Amino acid sequence: MRCEWASSPFLLDREDMRDTMKLFMEPESVAIIGATRKNGPGTYNLVENMLRFGYRGKVFPVNPQADEILGLRAYSSIRDIGQAVDLTVINLPRDLVLKGIRECAAVGVRAVIVVGQGFADADKTGQTLQSEMVSIAKESGMRILGPNTLGVLNAFHPFTTSFMPLSREAAPVGVICQSGIFFVGAGRFSGMMGKGIDVGNACDIGFNEALSYLGDDPDTRVIAIHMEGLSHGREFVALAARVSRKKPVVIFKTGRSEAGARAAASHSGTIAGSYRVYQAALTQAGCTLITEDSKMRDAVRALLLLPPMRGNRVAVITVTGAGGIITTDALERYGLTLASLSSKTLAPVSELSPPWMPLGNPLDIWPAVMKHGMQKVYPPALKALLDDPAVDAVLCINVALNLPDYAFLDVSEALNQAVSGDKPVVVWLYGENSQGIGEKIEKEGKIIPFQTLEGAAWALSALRERQAYLEKISGS
Amino acid sequence: MRCEWASSPFLLDREDMRDTMKLFMEPESVAIIGATRKNGPGTYNLVENMLRFGYRGKVFPVNPQADEILGLRAYSSIRDIGQAVDLTVINLPRDLVLKGIRECAAVGVRAVIVVGQGFADADKTGQTLQSEMVSIAKESGMRILGPNTLGVLNAFHPFTTSFMPLSREAAPVGVICQSGIFFVGAGRFSGMMGKGIDVGNACDIGFNEALSYLGDDPDTRVIAIHMEGLSHGREFVALAARVSRKKPVVIFKTGRSEAGARAAASHSGTIAGSYRVYQAALTQAGCTLITEDSKMRDAVRALLLLPPMRGNRVAVITVTGAGGIITTDALERYGLTLASLSSKTLAPVSELSPPWMPLGNPLDIWPAVMKHGMQKVYPPALKALLDDPAVDAVLCINVALNLPDYAFLDVSEALNQAVSGDKPVVVWLYGENSQGIGEKIEKEGKIIPFQTLEGAAWALSALRERQAYLEKISGS
Repeated sequence: MRCEWASSPFLLDREDMRDTMKLFMEPESVAIIGATRKNGPGTYNLVENMLRFGYRGKVFPVNPQADEILGLRAYSSIRDIGQAVDLTVINLPRDLVLKGIRECAAVGVRAVIVVGQGFADADKTGQTLQSEMVSIAKESGMRILGPNTLGVLNAFHPFTTSFMPLSREAAPVGVICQSGIFFVGAGRFSGMMGKGIDVGNACDIGFNEALSYLGDDPDTRVIAIHMEGLSHGREFVALAARVSRKKPVVIFKTGRSEAGARAAASHSGTIAGSYRVYQAALTQAGCTLITEDSKMRDAVRALLLLPPMRGNRVAVITVTGAGGIITTDALERYGLTLASLSSKTLAPVSELSPPWMPLGNPLDIWPAVMKHGMQKVYPPALKALLDDPAVDAVLCINVALNLPDYAFLDVSEALNQAVSGDKPVVVWLYGENSQGIGEKIEKEGKIIPFQTLEGAAWALSALRERQAYLEKISGS
Repeated sequence: MRCEWASSPFLLDREDMRDTMKLFMEPESVAIIGATRKNGPGTYNLVENMLRFGYRGKVFPVNPQADEILGLRAYSSIRDIGQAVDLTVINLPRDLVLKGIRECAAVGVRAVIVVGQGFADADKTGQTLQSEMVSIAKESGMRILGPNTLGVLNAFHPFTTSFMPLSREAAPVGVICQSGIFFVGAGRFSGMMGKGIDVGNACDIGFNEALSYLGDDPDTRVIAIHMEGLSHGREFVALAARVSRKKPVVIFKTGRSEAGARAAASHSGTIAGSYRVYQAALTQAGCTLITEDSKMRDAVRALLLLPPMRGNRVAVITVTGAGGIITTDALERYGLTLASLSSKTLAPVSELSPPWMPLGNPLDIWPAVMKHGMQKVYPPALKALLDDPAVDAVLCINVALNLPDYAFLDVSEALNQAVSGDKPVVVWLYGENSQGIGEKIEKEGKIIPFQTLEGAAWALSALRERQAYLEKISGS
């Protein structure tokens, strides 16, 4: 088979591509060239971290100065291992990397991760080293992930090449990124991560290979991408369009500003500018594009956990008129509208409200709550909104006091009982126990609490955009 | 003295205004017309809540059906109290409020809070009731806060009229709002609150009176305003300009969208539209205008806790190149620039970095950290940035692992030691212990950690705008 190069999956057989990526993501055996003899915190010992993460395959540390590393036999060279190895990780200073690559090529290694920095992300010498690395690999049919990467993480088939300690959670979110920050700081970005591919400088394996793998991966239901530079953009757009038919693809392109683009060029050695060309195309391809760091998590959680939003009409149920107004501003900013609520829908609240209370959307239930108590008002009010065919999603604004005595204001149970899963429901809480009540609500996995009203409105808009795309392509 | 009416502080003597607001904020005695006999959670008993909050003044519950409320003698009418009362709170159904107001007028009450809803926020009848209430008050020289309000909160001279339980923290942040959500949900908005004035429907006491009070209040160092409608805008702008010379004024105007404006009209019965006219004027007057719910807290904390930002040049110190790029995008979006770092400033990091590492701003210290450890690199790197006259603020991106073994990556101590207080320093943390390390950093009160890079960049821009305003008006 002739191996077409660098991020051109469409020239490759897809089966073959999947087999290649499996070597990186689910290797049965792994060699580590440059495995350190030291271990413990601060040594960033890859082998130690891999074992700690739960890897159960064969591990071959390579270090000519060691006989044994962490109880494993150490080899002085990859040539000495004497058996085929699925994946080789090279963790050497940049001056030694080419030698390592050549040795890998010599023994027929097919998949290599180059961890270290100092290549296209650094100086001219580094650029040259990276080019040479690619040439050697190309000749031998070997594929390279990196350099300048934490490598991969797979919580399903426990494996990681990260030298930073990571926790393992088999979450159906796959991450493709150009920095370890998205592995270590997953909580800040994708929120959760079950599989991760850090393409680093993307000298060979790039966004196309990674997206192709996660797109076909049955463990992955949402894909979150951090992108500094994009090469082979045309192919990427076509691939994203294919993948996004099956699962949401969220893209956080950074280096959008002029200064940011310059910084990106020196961080991962990639060209940021070309993305602008593909921006509209990616939206048309059904991807969710984000521009602020806080929004990836909001979008990923909504797309993963909430049912489709079949129109753009939102009902807001609130214990505070002011909160309803803040929400209305945010919804309008994101292209959503307030549902027109029929008198039938308003009936359960209007029966319990003082006669002077003007009811509409946002639906302010507070006067009714003052008269009849939260537990009598909330469940029928919410049910009526969910039953209304003119409502496509419900946004709930609830108070969360940090006083055990005030548990009667806590509607998390009523909320979880009312939600059947055919319309998205999101919650925003205020008060000192927002986190506690939020966790209680989220535990059931049916409703998502958001930190900000802005975030909740944005997440609903991402959900709506996604559904509109699916409707468009299915011609409905 | 002739009493000019409704939000016209410039026609009033300022001393007189302050005396009036003191009756609301620091009363030595308070009567509650409509004090409920029930107490405990769910009864929303104002008197109970006031005592629980720590009020030490005289309390006169008024309820013709009770002899005693919470151990206090109850009066059947305000006429029976037989002594002057600083403030009277009317907590009656709307049909009984006018009677209450008339009784207050008859005994010469000077300050009244009307808690209940159902006035200009409701129907035509409510509008009429509100007008009549104002007429009676006007004739008698009485001032009204509300209706439709939680009233006031004062953590310094412990007092509140809120029927919702609130915690008390003598924080130097004063809040003016049109909804109890800003009292109960202070954590979500202003972050902290030492004094609060909920103007509700603002039938009489409005933004001008409240701002005038907090502007002169020595306990208040930052003022956060939630505004649905603005009447007497011209006076408000002039007053805001005067106050903002002394302390920051942050304004969150809601009901900015068309649908939001309609909702505001029915929530607090105020006209939202006129604000647009004053938007530019308020910025020119040195106010910080925000448009998203999450940003009030960021702005308030920065303006309260950080030193002035004397230019718009930011240095970013980071353990991740990708984080630096995300930050660069955000800084540029908010009108800030990356400082040009001299080789002298870069020297401490360049001496410890591999020779191939391109150093600049953002300053990526990770390769140096890998070689020499965090504690050897961080303090001199940060010190050099703070010492550089071309740097006006420093944004730090740090990792926060949730592993006791990895405490050597925690730079909170080094950070707090390095910061002298002449330049603002903000931090963004990623990793599973972001909250823990963040709290440790914040405890010293010198550096603020932010939840998002977006928020950190925005807060610095608010700080810079503030300082630019102060420089402009002082002619420097």
